[in-house]
Amino acid sequence: MSDAVELLVCTTCRCGQPKEAEAPRPGAQLYEALSEQPLPEGVKLRPVECLSNCSQGCTIGLRGPGRWTYVYGGLEPEAHVGVILDGLARYLTAPNGIIPWRERPEHFKRNCVVRIPPMEAAHA
Amino acid sequence: MSDAVELLVCTTCRCGQPKEAEAPRPGAQLYEALSEQPLPEGVKLRPVECLSNCSQGCTIGLRGPGRWTYVYGGLEPEAHVGVILDGLARYLTAPNGIIPWRERPEHFKRNCVVRIPPMEAAHA
Repeated sequence: MSDAVELLVCTTCRCGQPKEAEAPRPGAQLYEALSEQPLPEGVKLRPVECLSNCSQGCTIGLRGPGRWTYVYGGLEPEAHVGVILDGLARYLTAPNGIIPWRERPEHFKRNCVVRIPPMEAAHA
Repeated sequence: MSDAVELLVCTTCRCGQPKEAEAPRPGAQLYEALSEQPLPEGVKLRPVECLSNCSQGCTIGLRGPGRWTYVYGGLEPEAHVGVILDGLARYLTAPNGIIPWRERPEHFKRNCVVRIPPMEAAHA
């Protein structure tokens, strides 16, 4: 297992678009937008088919060995790339993945879907 | 790292109770109720302080090495112990943690908060 921090992006998110719509999915657009950005060293961008947060807009996850996993929703492909990169940078500087509340981007404060403790701690 | 499957339970959940209420928290009651049940071999019950799904009722997570993590909300301490144990048993029989849709407990179908892919697959 690598020590990489992963930026998970739900690529199947429709953001409420009709199932029949043939337009590119907002989730895929968000993934594309992020893939065009230089990411900090050690961060792996990873597409995921459905993070199962379908009713709350585009969704990402941040996780890594020894860190809490955080999932955030309510994201838009064009509007929130900067917010995601800002939050990612702050996540990287938090050894356990817990960004101090005051330092979290406002969008992260209001759109955290779930957090999950690191696997390792369970067997410490 | 152990191969154990973990049943995470948010013990701080208030289920909408006022912050000032001194009554036992529903999340803690759910954890207590589950701790009184015999769990399948290899399953570790683990309390977590806040899974950050506070607005959607008591919350649990199922995860294990090589498995998708699933988080379910909308649970009640007394009403849903059987459902959780049923879902746990089905999760155990699914090698990657993905319970076939038709076999999922109805509550799981309607109250999945998020799912997260296994860590290992990211580095395969």
